[in-house]
Amino acid sequence: MNIPRRVCQLRPSRVILSGIQPTGIPHLGNYLGALSNWVKLQKSAQPEDKLLFSIVGWHALTLPQDPAALLAARNDMLAVLLAIGIDPNRSILFHQDHNPHHTELSWILSCIAPMGKLRRMTTWKSRLAAARNSGSEDEVDESMLNAGLFMYPVLQAADVLVYKATHVPVGDDQQQHIELTRDLADIFNRTYKGTSPLFPLPTYVNTPSKRILSLKDPTSKMSKSSPDVQSRILLTDTASQIQSKIRAAVTDSIQGITYDPEGRPGTSNLLTILAACTDSDVIQVAKAYESQGHGTLKRDVAEAVEEFLKKPRAQFDRIRLETTYLDEVARRGATRAIEHSKVTMMEVKTRLGLASRVVHR
Amino acid sequence: MNIPRRVCQLRPSRVILSGIQPTGIPHLGNYLGALSNWVKLQKSAQPEDKLLFSIVGWHALTLPQDPAALLAARNDMLAVLLAIGIDPNRSILFHQDHNPHHTELSWILSCIAPMGKLRRMTTWKSRLAAARNSGSEDEVDESMLNAGLFMYPVLQAADVLVYKATHVPVGDDQQQHIELTRDLADIFNRTYKGTSPLFPLPTYVNTPSKRILSLKDPTSKMSKSSPDVQSRILLTDTASQIQSKIRAAVTDSIQGITYDPEGRPGTSNLLTILAACTDSDVIQVAKAYESQGHGTLKRDVAEAVEEFLKKPRAQFDRIRLETTYLDEVARRGATRAIEHSKVTMMEVKTRLGLASRVVHR
Repeated sequence: MNIPRRVCQLRPSRVILSGIQPTGIPHLGNYLGALSNWVKLQKSAQPEDKLLFSIVGWHALTLPQDPAALLAARNDMLAVLLAIGIDPNRSILFHQDHNPHHTELSWILSCIAPMGKLRRMTTWKSRLAAARNSGSEDEVDESMLNAGLFMYPVLQAADVLVYKATHVPVGDDQQQHIELTRDLADIFNRTYKGTSPLFPLPTYVNTPSKRILSLKDPTSKMSKSSPDVQSRILLTDTASQIQSKIRAAVTDSIQGITYDPEGRPGTSNLLTILAACTDSDVIQVAKAYESQGHGTLKRDVAEAVEEFLKKPRAQFDRIRLETTYLDEVARRGATRAIEHSKVTMMEVKTRLGLASRVVHR
Repeated sequence: MNIPRRVCQLRPSRVILSGIQPTGIPHLGNYLGALSNWVKLQKSAQPEDKLLFSIVGWHALTLPQDPAALLAARNDMLAVLLAIGIDPNRSILFHQDHNPHHTELSWILSCIAPMGKLRRMTTWKSRLAAARNSGSEDEVDESMLNAGLFMYPVLQAADVLVYKATHVPVGDDQQQHIELTRDLADIFNRTYKGTSPLFPLPTYVNTPSKRILSLKDPTSKMSKSSPDVQSRILLTDTASQIQSKIRAAVTDSIQGITYDPEGRPGTSNLLTILAACTDSDVIQVAKAYESQGHGTLKRDVAEAVEEFLKKPRAQFDRIRLETTYLDEVARRGATRAIEHSKVTMMEVKTRLGLASRVVHR
């Protein structure tokens, strides 16, 4: 019996896309957050799934950047992604700004994006509030903010739709942007009807990510921007740097170890790091240490972190210097990304009346 | 004596850029307005001047468009420009949306464009007012307007700056947009200092354009959107259509002919058309007809218009069917435009920290 292939498939193939800003060397919080999820997605994906991972340089421009630092950070982020295990043969790994279709589709989407929807984005509203150093999100003067910040979610929608991505793993704070992406896809599909809707409505993938806290102030997240370098562990930290930072981590003076994020944030943060670095359950880890002291816990955490970072750190140290290889990876990633997006763009332009026929490569 | 070439030049070479929306077959008002000025600029330019004329498809998307009509209008506008004498070997004639650098630079400029400046654009304010069918420009709800309308002047600035244009012939209503272009160029130059300012500040060129009025209501401009087709003469009108439209033109019942735009708008409009089509001074034309009647004037106007349109009309009728030639002109125009803009974009990306070196092809 001749069963069509699609019927045989358990589920349709997915197009998974995510992006990260070129922020330079990531810290443990970045790594255990978004980045390690990308590697897990790459491992768990079916052979027919497409994966695209993008370093989003255009988005970085919405905030002031030092050009020399940005240039180095772009290179470092590419090296990091390779070092932690993103396989440029399996996944399409590329710089957003190497593919011109992102800003083209962003312009097209801006022409169907109602101002009201963009104004309601909470990221925009919080920028407004921050601009005035004010707690209130209402009635804040926007005149000095740049228009790129306002248009950010439209470009993000273009990032996703230009590859007809179906699954978008992003942080909780980006969920509203995925909603906007779905809205814009739907407006486009309804306005420019063809034989079938052009854009799939992408699904927000809430990847469970570890929330790693500052080693010096465990009430706030581990952050690149904290002035205290002891508060974070970088991917490039040596074993002795890791040891000294963990040893100096703020905990508490309560006897024994328990997992209690509310009451014992510093201790619980160390347990979270230990569990994440050893791929264990935090509750079981806590149980194993219940009669131990902070010294033992810290020693084991430092060892686990070193063990966890050793390989990617060595890889990173090696790869970041191989500039010819990095340029080649970026070039090939862009070529492959463009191969996909140009099919979408030709369909989009045809529906808009900007091109006369669909040409598939 | 070895005098550097620059010193020998009378003035630095100009880069002249202008754009027109793909609105389809132009009427006499369009032709005697922007379009004939383009041909004059092409004739009067020095050999070292660069000329770029663009059909701005991205801008057209800010208003609702019928895709089939837009596709035809793009083709027709290209044919019109060739028919009236734009020489694709002398000038770079291209579709804006065939060059990806326009939207890329537009994104970059949006990241340095303060929201307040965009909000003050009168074109935006009048859109707001029109959206509510209101005479007032204040306190109008913008939430339903699309973001493309808001960003329109930023894309226009990119259109100009991506070629480092020095001279921009546009209508009076666009003067404020050229001011914004200069502002954004200046902000970029100051923010991303190099050995010298990257963008020249472009000059607004106020080309004296004939204001041609409706033949049926000479208090308003001749317009493509008027429901009365008798109110305008199209480039494609036949001699007999021209005759009948001019014969039915609204004038007045005052004896004799005088040029009095306030008191006798219909009669004065016919004199303006006659002077423009015969390349004469309207005051002298009026003097020649002072003892004549409206019948004689109308007969001569119809003849002059027919004489004026005959050649471009025949050219247009021929060229619009030569789709292979039109595609080739568009393709070559895009290639030449991109050759220029890619040099600018590499410089821009280098200053931003998105690329590591300036590569001149």
